[in-house]
Amino acid sequence: MAVTVSSVAEVCARARDASRALAATDTATKNGALRAIARALRSREAEILAANELDLQDGCEADIGAALLDRLRLDGERVEAIAAAVEAVAALGDAVGEVIEGYRLPNGLDVRKVRVPLGVVAVVYEARPNVTIDAAALCLKSGNAIVLRGSSSATQSNAVLASIASEAAVGAGLPEGCIGLIGSPTHPGGHEELAELATQEGVVDLLIPRGGEGLKAALKNVATVPVIYAASGNCHIYVDASADLDQALAIVLNAKTQRPGVCNAVETVLVHADVATDFLLSAIPALRAEGVELRADMRAGALSGEHPELNAAGEEDWDAEYLALTLAIGVVDSVEQAIEHIARYGSGHSEAILTKDTASARAFQLGVDAACVYVNASTRFTDGGEFGMGAEIGNSTQKLHARGPIGLRELCTFKYLIEGSGHVRA
Amino acid sequence: MAVTVSSVAEVCARARDASRALAATDTATKNGALRAIARALRSREAEILAANELDLQDGCEADIGAALLDRLRLDGERVEAIAAAVEAVAALGDAVGEVIEGYRLPNGLDVRKVRVPLGVVAVVYEARPNVTIDAAALCLKSGNAIVLRGSSSATQSNAVLASIASEAAVGAGLPEGCIGLIGSPTHPGGHEELAELATQEGVVDLLIPRGGEGLKAALKNVATVPVIYAASGNCHIYVDASADLDQALAIVLNAKTQRPGVCNAVETVLVHADVATDFLLSAIPALRAEGVELRADMRAGALSGEHPELNAAGEEDWDAEYLALTLAIGVVDSVEQAIEHIARYGSGHSEAILTKDTASARAFQLGVDAACVYVNASTRFTDGGEFGMGAEIGNSTQKLHARGPIGLRELCTFKYLIEGSGHVRA
Repeated sequence: MAVTVSSVAEVCARARDASRALAATDTATKNGALRAIARALRSREAEILAANELDLQDGCEADIGAALLDRLRLDGERVEAIAAAVEAVAALGDAVGEVIEGYRLPNGLDVRKVRVPLGVVAVVYEARPNVTIDAAALCLKSGNAIVLRGSSSATQSNAVLASIASEAAVGAGLPEGCIGLIGSPTHPGGHEELAELATQEGVVDLLIPRGGEGLKAALKNVATVPVIYAASGNCHIYVDASADLDQALAIVLNAKTQRPGVCNAVETVLVHADVATDFLLSAIPALRAEGVELRADMRAGALSGEHPELNAAGEEDWDAEYLALTLAIGVVDSVEQAIEHIARYGSGHSEAILTKDTASARAFQLGVDAACVYVNASTRFTDGGEFGMGAEIGNSTQKLHARGPIGLRELCTFKYLIEGSGHVRA
Repeated sequence: MAVTVSSVAEVCARARDASRALAATDTATKNGALRAIARALRSREAEILAANELDLQDGCEADIGAALLDRLRLDGERVEAIAAAVEAVAALGDAVGEVIEGYRLPNGLDVRKVRVPLGVVAVVYEARPNVTIDAAALCLKSGNAIVLRGSSSATQSNAVLASIASEAAVGAGLPEGCIGLIGSPTHPGGHEELAELATQEGVVDLLIPRGGEGLKAALKNVATVPVIYAASGNCHIYVDASADLDQALAIVLNAKTQRPGVCNAVETVLVHADVATDFLLSAIPALRAEGVELRADMRAGALSGEHPELNAAGEEDWDAEYLALTLAIGVVDSVEQAIEHIARYGSGHSEAILTKDTASARAFQLGVDAACVYVNASTRFTDGGEFGMGAEIGNSTQKLHARGPIGLRELCTFKYLIEGSGHVRA
């Protein structure tokens, strides 16, 4: 496979050109292209695995560690899963063209607010090569051209995946340049390229970083294009005085242990003082049995009969997004105190109250400022798939444009279409 | 009136605190506060005019010019208009609490996407003191605290207006700090304060500059909080081969001359070659009769029988937002060429096609990437009031969050409220 090295500006300019044709491409053509991509991924599995093997060898030599190697590794099953995910995106409804609202003005002008693609979406991501295809599928389905910039540890895999997807998409009628990749095996690029990508004003309409705090920080200092920073999740569950304590324990266990490394996992449980002893006496052993390390504040320590000095929770624990089997526990005297704590330490991602009391539930939903506010459910449901959006390209804790899962609709903007019959303004 | 000088950070922190109470304030209380502000403005008109007189005197001494002095000047009629505008905002429906969408997931979880206030909105504006009240009314109605930073030439007027509004709002039950003003007559502040305001991350949720390109440029370099830059409008009207030429002339005259200094006025007219001679032979004298200076490209010059060198349009004319009685005229051979020209030079504000042909209309609406795309109507309708939003705090040509008029809904974000009965993720 010939890899042409293009400058960041060239890749972005081609994507810009492609985006104009893509915006006018009908749903059937876009879906056909996605299904062609899925077929190509399956039929060219050997190429993908061969390229991936080269990345894995480089990773071993560079000693990147077992966890990163596992994230990097593809096999037949994973390639099939990637192809199936593309087909799932093809099966979703098209957000483009949806009339968000429409009305006739008193002067007779007809106004429609219609969803349209953003244009060019850039996605910067780390490690997992499946993101190459997942992100491309969501962007193409929403009528956007995509510029991808993956991890240097996955350049061989990403190059083959992007090339296969691009060939299949163009073969199925999408415009050349609709999938652009920055960085190639012979020219992986560095921070200068990231900075160049993040400053393509008027060309890149949205940049989505999918990676750690280092990547976010690097972008914050240079980006002049719009960026939606993927969420960090310091999520809380508040166990109200009226909570069903068995249900509360099941939810806390689920939210902490079902998949502790993700942003919608719970990091702090706040318990009302009235039920703290009862709840903690069953919760502490149950959580420990699942391997959870607990950091309790003084009152939680005392009320649970544990020695207060054991794993004492401090300011850094309230701030922590552990992303691990660690949980901070605090005691509060009211739903208002819980809301205060969350306002101070929460990251605005997912917050839950467990209660039987309608007044507490309403106060919590009204008072907590977060993307997702749950009553009697696990925080783990914050996810585009779970929310019925089909898939997501990330999760936003920003308040502008997209908050919560970023799905097809969030990859769109809108325009007003106004129709008259010679109307002039008086 | 005692004016307390507070630091930018203090004013913003008070607004932050106020915003939490405001978000939970019901519509009746907010409307009551707005009506109280209107009453206070009327009853304290003398104070307002006295303060304004001091600004006018300072402006005369500083020789700021007649146009700026007129923008600065208040009188009884203008104060009444400001008060009436606040009452008009009170009469609007409340965007907060609107369920944008709601559904039940297959697992039984009930999901509602509900509109909520952004939190703290900062508005930086120039000259006109009425913005102090207009912006405050829109922000309070949408449940946001506001931090105002007006022009140094209007500090006395702005201080009195903000103080009257704040007292009335707090007296009617809104939280202290809900209207913050940066800069006082004795301490007008400077660029350092603007930079401090624009970097209140986690405190200011949105900053809206209302001013010229200098203000935007100053903010671009320093802002770390989200900013929606008010639009510049390089708007086009394309007169298609099939256009009703009498109607077209009426629309072009309206869009250019009804109020030439605003961002939705037309700056370039593109005419299809087939009708260029007919259209221009009537349009050129009609536009000149209204005092419009014309800049025509070679073909327009030739086709209209005018000497091509006269006021020849160049690259700088296609780029220009004249905001004056000047109009560029170009000839194109197709709707596609018109779309190309607009893609290259347009600012994404308001673009119109005048045509009888459905295929041309559809191609234009699909192919032009702008906030507002008109068929057979003047571009001058792009306005929150005209669009039925009641009022606007600006007009966005950005694609994220708000595009077009920024009204009450655009001053909001949303959150997902999810209700279950002990749901855990499998």
